Amino acid sequence: MLITANDPNRKSWLNIEKGSDFPIQNIPFGVFFTRDDIITIGTRIGEYAIDLGAFHQLGYFDGIPLTDDMFMQDSLNDFISDGRKTWRLVRNRIAEIFDIENSSLRDNSKHREIIIFDVNEVEMLLPISVGDYTDFYSSKEHATNVGVMFRGKDNALMPNWLHMPIGYHGRSSSVVVSGTPIHRPYGQSLPKNETTPVFGPSKRVDMELETAFITTDTNNLGEPISIKEAGEYIFGMVLLNDWSARDIQKWEYVPLGPFLGKNFASTISPWIITMDALEPFRCEAPVQEPTPLPYLQQKRTDTTFDIKLEAVLETENGDLNVLSTSNFKYLYWTMPQQLAHHTMNGCNVRSGDLMGSGTISGPTKNSYGSMLELSWGGKEPITLKDGTTRVFFKDGDNVILRGYCKNENIRIGFGKCTGKILPAVKLK
Amino acid sequence: MLITANDPNRKSWLNIEKGSDFPIQNIPFGVFFTRDDIITIGTRIGEYAIDLGAFHQLGYFDGIPLTDDMFMQDSLNDFISDGRKTWRLVRNRIAEIFDIENSSLRDNSKHREIIIFDVNEVEMLLPISVGDYTDFYSSKEHATNVGVMFRGKDNALMPNWLHMPIGYHGRSSSVVVSGTPIHRPYGQSLPKNETTPVFGPSKRVDMELETAFITTDTNNLGEPISIKEAGEYIFGMVLLNDWSARDIQKWEYVPLGPFLGKNFASTISPWIITMDALEPFRCEAPVQEPTPLPYLQQKRTDTTFDIKLEAVLETENGDLNVLSTSNFKYLYWTMPQQLAHHTMNGCNVRSGDLMGSGTISGPTKNSYGSMLELSWGGKEPITLKDGTTRVFFKDGDNVILRGYCKNENIRIGFGKCTGKILPAVKLK
Repeated sequence: MLITANDPNRKSWLNIEKGSDFPIQNIPFGVFFTRDDIITIGTRIGEYAIDLGAFHQLGYFDGIPLTDDMFMQDSLNDFISDGRKTWRLVRNRIAEIFDIENSSLRDNSKHREIIIFDVNEVEMLLPISVGDYTDFYSSKEHATNVGVMFRGKDNALMPNWLHMPIGYHGRSSSVVVSGTPIHRPYGQSLPKNETTPVFGPSKRVDMELETAFITTDTNNLGEPISIKEAGEYIFGMVLLNDWSARDIQKWEYVPLGPFLGKNFASTISPWIITMDALEPFRCEAPVQEPTPLPYLQQKRTDTTFDIKLEAVLETENGDLNVLSTSNFKYLYWTMPQQLAHHTMNGCNVRSGDLMGSGTISGPTKNSYGSMLELSWGGKEPITLKDGTTRVFFKDGDNVILRGYCKNENIRIGFGKCTGKILPAVKLK
Repeated sequence: MLITANDPNRKSWLNIEKGSDFPIQNIPFGVFFTRDDIITIGTRIGEYAIDLGAFHQLGYFDGIPLTDDMFMQDSLNDFISDGRKTWRLVRNRIAEIFDIENSSLRDNSKHREIIIFDVNEVEMLLPISVGDYTDFYSSKEHATNVGVMFRGKDNALMPNWLHMPIGYHGRSSSVVVSGTPIHRPYGQSLPKNETTPVFGPSKRVDMELETAFITTDTNNLGEPISIKEAGEYIFGMVLLNDWSARDIQKWEYVPLGPFLGKNFASTISPWIITMDALEPFRCEAPVQEPTPLPYLQQKRTDTTFDIKLEAVLETENGDLNVLSTSNFKYLYWTMPQQLAHHTMNGCNVRSGDLMGSGTISGPTKNSYGSMLELSWGGKEPITLKDGTTRVFFKDGDNVILRGYCKNENIRIGFGKCTGKILPAVKLK
């Protein structure tokens, strides 16, 4: 089926600012409270939030096989379960209705009033009910940097790393939507040169600049999916800040991996950008040497996406400090490789599962995706515009992730993924 | 509120075999398909499955504040959300109605026919919708045994182990109910003395003899709960077999912990035994030295439970081979310590979350809870009744976990947690 929604020449009758992350070619999906406090599934065009529950009720999806309440839900899971054909039909239809030449909704002021909101009027919610959250560790630069700091240069990259996309299970309950403030977590850590741990608020709260993909129902328990089909099961992508408390993590993570150092919060951006919208931005992934095992080999070479990423620190005075400028294409392992690997043992993947990329660090210091790397383990403070320095985050710091794709024709953006650090709560 | 359901002198008008795991003092909760293919929440008394949906509809819970459809659901999550007061009222009422002196249901054959099934007529389902599954690692004997094998005697117990209940996130999607067959998983492993991994069906499929507890909604994100209150949030317990593929696990687990070596399946027993039913079996936990940090200190000393555990291998000829005889009370870290630790960083815990104990090994070889330990890393084969040997499981092996508490008055059992190993699927 043609993705007519991607037509770069299409213009909308909605007024869209030049350089917007959400031109009519984007058509992402999200969930929000309308100004009338109703929860609905919606999309975004420019600075407008479109209520797809109302859009459907008023007949604009007629002819597409959808249940009546498909968009009147508090998560996209059921819609995502419907599969790629439906996603395309829906996205194409939205593009068509908002096309500058289409008068059906354009000239119906009553319907426009019910369907279209200013984005500032709505409150974005978590777009999916996350069944399971997996986080990979697929940036070679990040894995090497952390390895050098934690285990020294000679043991930096573990022997398994080049043979499979290493990953681990995160916590679903604490996945939150952009804008949710994050309390500094308490926990145990081991002071330098001590053998007894101490308890208190973390002193090393960090970000991880990541993206994540969201799956549809993939397989039954026990039945692996092949790398050939894996891509078909990916609905779309979001930005992900996998908050980390490095002092807690360092003390707890051997031998079972990160736990309380990570599960106090993981923030995602509210709009899921579909793989269809990202299709024009395919590019080549890094060469994999040694060649992976056959179940991880991909035939096509344009297996990844050119997505520019940025991490910005907003201090309390409103200054915006760019901490890192990275790109999704730096990742060594691709999303189909991650998904095929995940199911190869028969593990079942469901609609609404969230799979993080791992911190996306690039080759140069200004492209590192965590404060751990940017301040090199806390040894090289970063000076901000207001003259203060950071090695990790302070209370009041607002961390903003951004991402977008751009070619000569078009810009497809992710919007923002933000989270402000609040002081540790008072313990009862 | 008095737990009148625990009255050891109560007899039922239902015929219960002596030595049953499910006397009228147990009253566990589960979910099943009735013979009419309706899904309902139920309890079990002796060899009878009681349809609590019908029981409620017919008025036997009158006076207890419950929504009309509370028990006509496919999971216990909403009931568990209602909190301990409601759990007690419901359990007390069931005991009362099935008391030998109570004629209301006893003498109503029409109602009996609607409410009471033979357990062999119903199909047990997963009792909860698992939001998040955490597995702890709280047996000192197990952690030491594995440590000796994987890292040598000198690094056996990691320095953090005695200071906190180490845990990690498991996979929710692949938690299955007892009786679900398990396909041998595929995966990567590193042959001895090689540097390049191979791909194929696991050669080291293992069990982990565990229990797990199930929580109610505990806290909002960012708000720790204290160890004083932690116990109040635990609804009940099940048996858990945390299947493990040791060859996959060994190659993948550094540095982020177990992933595909574990997430192909975790089996739980179908009946949740309430903490109220287990209350008479409280006992002292092992002495903790060094004293844990204050947030993990418990005032009472009877902080654990005397639950006898057993792992049995049923070979295809029907022989039952006892592999291990262990006890829940061997665990070093208690359930309230695990739960308080889990939320101390603000991580939120929800109704239906599953928290595994970790493999429960005792001090002697016949009490080790995994084949990895029983065969000491595959070096000491176990001879079965039929003369064959095992180091890990073969296709066709049926692994049965059992658990029960017993004192002079009463036996409260968990029933069985079983899973049969099927050959690896054919890859497409």
